[in-house]
Amino acid sequence: MGTGRTRALSAREVFAANLKRVRLSAGLSQEKLAARARLHPNYVGSVERSERNVSIDNVEKLARALGVPIAQLLSVPSDREGRQQ
Amino acid sequence: MGTGRTRALSAREVFAANLKRVRLSAGLSQEKLAARARLHPNYVGSVERSERNVSIDNVEKLARALGVPIAQLLSVPSDREGRQQ
Repeated sequence: MGTGRTRALSAREVFAANLKRVRLSAGLSQEKLAARARLHPNYVGSVERSERNVSIDNVEKLARALGVPIAQLLSVPSDREGRQQ
Repeated sequence: MGTGRTRALSAREVFAANLKRVRLSAGLSQEKLAARARLHPNYVGSVERSERNVSIDNVEKLARALGVPIAQLLSVPSDREGRQQ
């Protein structure tokens, strides 16, 4: 049950949630992911909190570091869609 | 026929090519798309030339203005995949 409708997620929120989910399923800490992507750990943390207007070049670095297609990190997660039913 | 292998496109290049293709199939000029997305026409032009490290917020504005999911603008076009065969 719920409110019957769900606020649309912003692109930042979708990216943040996917990044965290994929990072955790890969068994990586924010520090390890940051090192692989050559980004600062604090930056990765702020991206996962939807605080950053992350650039496409950094989206690409993070996707490569996780070994997933960029589009996968920008797609609304299917469990979110499931919750709307 | 071709070289037998294809350089991997950068995320910027994929986004630029998809943006232009979807914009043209919607029958929109760069100026019209820019107005819809509340961005500067010169900015849209530079994004389509892969010159800009476009932010996720602006990717979202452009996708909304075109009425397509963000992930669609970041996916490698299927005709590009076809060319690799």
